[in-house]
Amino acid sequence: MTRNRTGTKNRLFERIGVDYPIIQAPMGGGPTTPELVAAVANAGGLGSIAGGYLEPDELLHFIEEVRRRTDRPFAVNLFAGPHTVEATDASAMLSHLARWHDALGLPPPEMPEQRPDRFDEKIEVILTERVGTFSFTFGIPEEATLTELRRHSVVVMGTATTVDEARMLEDAGVDSVVAQGSEAGAHRGTFASDPRGAMIGSMALIPQVADAVRIPVIGSGGIMDGRGIMAALVLGATGVQMGTAFLRARESNLPEAYRSRLMAAREDETVVTRAFSGKPARGIRNAFISDIEGSGAPVPPYPLQNSLTRSLRRAAAAQGNAEGLSLWAGQGVRLSREDSAAELIRRWVEECDSIRLSFS
Amino acid sequence: MTRNRTGTKNRLFERIGVDYPIIQAPMGGGPTTPELVAAVANAGGLGSIAGGYLEPDELLHFIEEVRRRTDRPFAVNLFAGPHTVEATDASAMLSHLARWHDALGLPPPEMPEQRPDRFDEKIEVILTERVGTFSFTFGIPEEATLTELRRHSVVVMGTATTVDEARMLEDAGVDSVVAQGSEAGAHRGTFASDPRGAMIGSMALIPQVADAVRIPVIGSGGIMDGRGIMAALVLGATGVQMGTAFLRARESNLPEAYRSRLMAAREDETVVTRAFSGKPARGIRNAFISDIEGSGAPVPPYPLQNSLTRSLRRAAAAQGNAEGLSLWAGQGVRLSREDSAAELIRRWVEECDSIRLSFS
Repeated sequence: MTRNRTGTKNRLFERIGVDYPIIQAPMGGGPTTPELVAAVANAGGLGSIAGGYLEPDELLHFIEEVRRRTDRPFAVNLFAGPHTVEATDASAMLSHLARWHDALGLPPPEMPEQRPDRFDEKIEVILTERVGTFSFTFGIPEEATLTELRRHSVVVMGTATTVDEARMLEDAGVDSVVAQGSEAGAHRGTFASDPRGAMIGSMALIPQVADAVRIPVIGSGGIMDGRGIMAALVLGATGVQMGTAFLRARESNLPEAYRSRLMAAREDETVVTRAFSGKPARGIRNAFISDIEGSGAPVPPYPLQNSLTRSLRRAAAAQGNAEGLSLWAGQGVRLSREDSAAELIRRWVEECDSIRLSFS
Repeated sequence: MTRNRTGTKNRLFERIGVDYPIIQAPMGGGPTTPELVAAVANAGGLGSIAGGYLEPDELLHFIEEVRRRTDRPFAVNLFAGPHTVEATDASAMLSHLARWHDALGLPPPEMPEQRPDRFDEKIEVILTERVGTFSFTFGIPEEATLTELRRHSVVVMGTATTVDEARMLEDAGVDSVVAQGSEAGAHRGTFASDPRGAMIGSMALIPQVADAVRIPVIGSGGIMDGRGIMAALVLGATGVQMGTAFLRARESNLPEAYRSRLMAAREDETVVTRAFSGKPARGIRNAFISDIEGSGAPVPPYPLQNSLTRSLRRAAAAQGNAEGLSLWAGQGVRLSREDSAAELIRRWVEECDSIRLSFS
């Protein structure tokens, strides 16, 4: 039974139905496999399916693949933000990306068709499949959607990067808020605050959010082991969400070039960039980031830039070229370990249990 | 008796001779008064004199003023970095600053004389006055200086913002390293790493530094209360350094416009800027920062820009104009409290003692 610092039972994670207040962050575009989600679930944590990039039928298939491997609860994460962009002149970016295509042996890039995100259909899958926990980023779903999720007793978690965003989520009626510190790898969840200011380190963000809302807070950003988990709980969190800490798990699907770059990465090599997707995201600096940021070509908004860079990222992965890959990683990257998800969680729990701190 | 997470006595702070592993950060240019340093010392913490901007005789006088108020140990902090700049063309900045001077009723700004920092003379004061603890930022003092300090049994602490910098400090023979997370207010201590990458949140920085060096680590950045102190210790720190948490202490000397702006500040309103001093530093965004960053005028390096903006900052303070002041603050700013330093420390210690956390 998980207890928080006040000694009361951890009701949120009891309701979710997992042993430990540890959430595997949804890592879209590859790392999150059904094997990873199921392994986390079987080890007593909460695995998260990264549904943002999936079509409804792909999400359904993913859920089935997880359920073949575990009967424990898991979460599905979707993007709640706007999914289409106004007509954008991407010609400068297209001609700049042509050099990368050429170097990777690809035909010149073309303006991609915009596919609708089909968010509502994916919510339908979540409800029909009786998924226990729904988390989201990049915004707040419509009230009718949240009401429907509540009616089905789904535990709902939104992502905030500032106190104001956390309050907006609480007002919208979510069950819990994930406070994403500036250390976090991959996409920033910022949806209402100025992105330049919404880069608050977890040490400062967690207690300020915990003081501002009554719902349970999940700490995320820079949490890599038992020390980080316990620190987040001490700061006022009810649980943690960990991404980079699971990135090198054996069940995670990473291109080999990405995996070996992670092993050698320093904590000060990551940058927040819009170069890959059009949205700010933290990854290890490489030639693609430096080239796009140095090019002067305006970076089209998400999801357009994400579509524009997709084929070159895939080609770079296939060719083992880390310089054209989005190497998402958080600032705790030196602490990432290669092991099974079960062993990672077992060790963190052991570390948490071994921390006995008294001050004076 | 202070104990760390392994249950062994906290030898660093025992050697320093204070009750609690809490350091009041040196806050130059005003906030740190002899009253503040002495009040922290009398309450069982380690106060720090901000000696970087002082002349040797001013430092001596400051030490005497502290000693009139306490017989407990305290620290002196100096800037270890380069203190002069190459000849720089500051004409664009001068003409831009002229508008601020005009608006504040000052005569046009002039190219300031460069005064030498007289670092070695201030070290002499520290040795002659038998100051117990010496901390530094912006670099590493020469080996002869460190040897001399060791010979006099001075406890020496250097400031690092990355793992590499922490290792350099350990190799130089310091007794402890202050790991400055990206949340921290005022100047970044970065001296060897790329400043763009050296913005690591405390949650990620503390454990990575603690794993990389054998000397005790002091956590700083975003630590605002008992929760932050205990979180830093859980992450592997032996103690903490707190600045923004002491900024509104009654003994702190703040212009009224600064104090009232702090009370209303949100955590996402601070930015890291070179606008005021030429070195990156975190403060609340105001008109001066936006104006200088938007002007396109190259910002001369420290200490030149610091000298160039001094008279307008003083005039803004005297006129109660927060838009022309350097409003240094960390990202934990919502948690700052107005109280005596003794009461702040008493409450944090009480909070630390009340945190009893068990994981499973």
